[in-house]
Amino acid sequence: MKHLLGIADLSRSEIEEILEVSEAMLEISQREVKRVPTLRGRTVMNVFLESSTRTRVSFEIAAKRLSADAINVSSVGSSLSKSETLNDMARNLAAMNADVLIVRDRTAGVPQMLAQRVRVPVINAGDGLHEHPTQALLDVFTARQSLGRLDGRVVAIVGDIAHSRVARSDIYAFSKLGAEVRVAGPPTMIPPGVEALGVKPCYSIGEALEGADVIAMLRIQQERIEGALFPSVREYAQVFGLNQRTLALASPNAIVLHPGPINRGVEIAPEVADNEPSRILDQVTNGVAVRMAVLYLLTGGET
Amino acid sequence: MKHLLGIADLSRSEIEEILEVSEAMLEISQREVKRVPTLRGRTVMNVFLESSTRTRVSFEIAAKRLSADAINVSSVGSSLSKSETLNDMARNLAAMNADVLIVRDRTAGVPQMLAQRVRVPVINAGDGLHEHPTQALLDVFTARQSLGRLDGRVVAIVGDIAHSRVARSDIYAFSKLGAEVRVAGPPTMIPPGVEALGVKPCYSIGEALEGADVIAMLRIQQERIEGALFPSVREYAQVFGLNQRTLALASPNAIVLHPGPINRGVEIAPEVADNEPSRILDQVTNGVAVRMAVLYLLTGGET
Amino acid sequence: MKHLLGIADLSRSEIEEILEVSEAMLEISQREVKRVPTLRGRTVMNVFLESSTRTRVSFEIAAKRLSADAINVSSVGSSLSKSETLNDMARNLAAMNADVLIVRDRTAGVPQMLAQRVRVPVINAGDGLHEHPTQALLDVFTARQSLGRLDGRVVAIVGDIAHSRVARSDIYAFSKLGAEVRVAGPPTMIPPGVEALGVKPCYSIGEALEGADVIAMLRIQQERIEGALFPSVREYAQVFGLNQRTLALASPNAIVLHPGPINRGVEIAPEVADNEPSRILDQVTNGVAVRMAVLYLLTGGET
Repeated sequence: MKHLLGIADLSRSEIEEILEVSEAMLEISQREVKRVPTLRGRTVMNVFLESSTRTRVSFEIAAKRLSADAINVSSVGSSLSKSETLNDMARNLAAMNADVLIVRDRTAGVPQMLAQRVRVPVINAGDGLHEHPTQALLDVFTARQSLGRLDGRVVAIVGDIAHSRVARSDIYAFSKLGAEVRVAGPPTMIPPGVEALGVKPCYSIGEALEGADVIAMLRIQQERIEGALFPSVREYAQVFGLNQRTLALASPNAIVLHPGPINRGVEIAPEVADNEPSRILDQVTNGVAVRMAVLYLLTGGET
Repeated sequence: MKHLLGIADLSRSEIEEILEVSEAMLEISQREVKRVPTLRGRTVMNVFLESSTRTRVSFEIAAKRLSADAINVSSVGSSLSKSETLNDMARNLAAMNADVLIVRDRTAGVPQMLAQRVRVPVINAGDGLHEHPTQALLDVFTARQSLGRLDGRVVAIVGDIAHSRVARSDIYAFSKLGAEVRVAGPPTMIPPGVEALGVKPCYSIGEALEGADVIAMLRIQQERIEGALFPSVREYAQVFGLNQRTLALASPNAIVLHPGPINRGVEIAPEVADNEPSRILDQVTNGVAVRMAVLYLLTGGET
Repeated sequence: MKHLLGIADLSRSEIEEILEVSEAMLEISQREVKRVPTLRGRTVMNVFLESSTRTRVSFEIAAKRLSADAINVSSVGSSLSKSETLNDMARNLAAMNADVLIVRDRTAGVPQMLAQRVRVPVINAGDGLHEHPTQALLDVFTARQSLGRLDGRVVAIVGDIAHSRVARSDIYAFSKLGAEVRVAGPPTMIPPGVEALGVKPCYSIGEALEGADVIAMLRIQQERIEGALFPSVREYAQVFGLNQRTLALASPNAIVLHPGPINRGVEIAPEVADNEPSRILDQVTNGVAVRMAVLYLLTGGET
């Protein structure tokens, strides 16, 4: 594994290797002294061209807990010719003897493009509507914490499937680990032909949640609702929101995931977000561990 | 002491404990190698939702001199529902195994609210018009450097008392250490009922400074002057500004404080700001030491 | 050497000392563990008041590879009285026991002004149209890597000489190391009286490049072209751009420099930028080393 560009590129055993290393990394974050010398003197570039406090902070903490030097870059200037600028910027950062480039951009494919131009490992921290692989890795890591092996488990991903890089990466990750994946949302939010990814589209939340072991709710972009299938956010919440009533449709041992930030009372009711069986804060904790594992493995670390 | 939310919450002995630890921390900043391993592997989140270069930098340096990993966060996105977003953000940062959250916000009460939602210590780095406790701690620390014990000392706080979190925290801090506190400013800038805080309101700078040992000038928001009691900034400077003439009204051993950034020629004349008995740059130096002490004590350090 | 404000202030032997230390620093960046304890516990303030991702990152990495604590400051607030604010800000940062202030500002002379007000070393990271000394140091360092001693070498600087701090610093640096410097550009871009700096003005690229050993292209501000001598960017590229055809006019062993970010197809053709004898990415790599050397020497390090 030279880069981490998408879950689509990973084999099951590669995913499992990352998860295994993540277990060890999680233990480090629970110590009083949360710092190991593993990446001392390595330079990690945290290039966030689309704003994202949480993911940026998670990667920055991951780098620092491994003793790497983390450098934040949040813009590449205002050149008209953005893709050329991005390429030159990435080559510049690499030329400063960077050891890893972490890249988030609002355009799908940017991390892939940069990975072809530089000799250092590139980590995709979210690119447009394409993939968000570390989010999916922390999702499967969190699910395994509660459920053990995921083979044969039922995973329901609910929300705007068509416009979610998290959905796409989750579909790949849960499927590769043997789970059965269903996606649910209004018809306008289910991409045509989604069955080709091996998932079952559902057009009611009840159909998706029946017997589900993992409920992965997506953040809904409120501005996408109006004018689409639903007349209002309130109606969306009633039909596709997760609340005590709809949660009861799932398996009794089901867990709830959400990539955050959550829209309380829209896609998820506060009482569901904040109580058992929500794993939302565990996801955040695990996110640091998974990112530590990815940084470690991409810079030459071994299991 | 679990959090540092305001001076109002502290006992005299808690304040004195912080000041005592600050002495030791000050010495560290005077070394060539200004770094001790005390907080190695701890994660300090510097969450500045209202912009502030100086205070942010002071806390960041304080964290780094204790070998902590300091993470800067400067926005929480643009959610419509700000208070919910803040809560979720704070819980997210805490879930990344943060050891301390430092929070500045333009709304009074935000640090207190967050302290109720997370299990990690919260430090108020300035919240609206409420409190700015580390500023008051560095003010009393600086005053004690010159004057020793503050019991019976006379402290004059001059400026827009009604709209100053520094004034409020200073009132508490100097009063708790036994000083007699006077506040001075135009009537519109003295809050009604300020006597209830145990201070004496003065409506001329002469009345406030007579025999004062500490003169704490406040930064005036120039946009608050126009349309209020004074026809112009120039008039304000003449009536409530500190200059050689008004300084002479104070005790011969009086010192001058200002939280910065100063408006030269408005609330303070340059020749007063830049010479004896100004302690303005000492305050800045001491600010790092006081913040190191607070970080140390809140993360379990002992005297 | 107390500050690094401009190449104009340096003697040949001071430049050579910096280059010698840079050699050792370059080796550190090529290690797996790119970190030495030289500046452990020192506080380096990276004050960038004009945005610049590359130079800021280069200095930040340089500080961190020397184990210093690097603090980024990107604005000083919105005071009306900017120069007073800058002075107070610098004195504040110095009062926090900073060991070095690195300053970039869009106004010429700001680093010089600040150097007079604070007791800590100031490094000019680019000030208006005045100087950009670390850029020139990395340029001469890079030229010496390929060419050895620069005495008698011919250096052609091509572009908007009149509006380039890089041109000015390069003229000083190459001249002081014994090279013959030519400058080329449209007449409106050559400052009147430039001969007084000991350089030869050329009004065609062919005249400048004939027999040149070093070709230092400048980034052209596209908005400066229109309405000036040239009707279009395309015309500029044809007349003053570096491409395979114009490159052939130089010495067979000539190297190509550019401070970045490059305007591909304007002042430099992509095939020239990305291939032998371009040293553009070497410049970036060397920039970190040169900045490490400057930080080391200004904080009391010896050769």
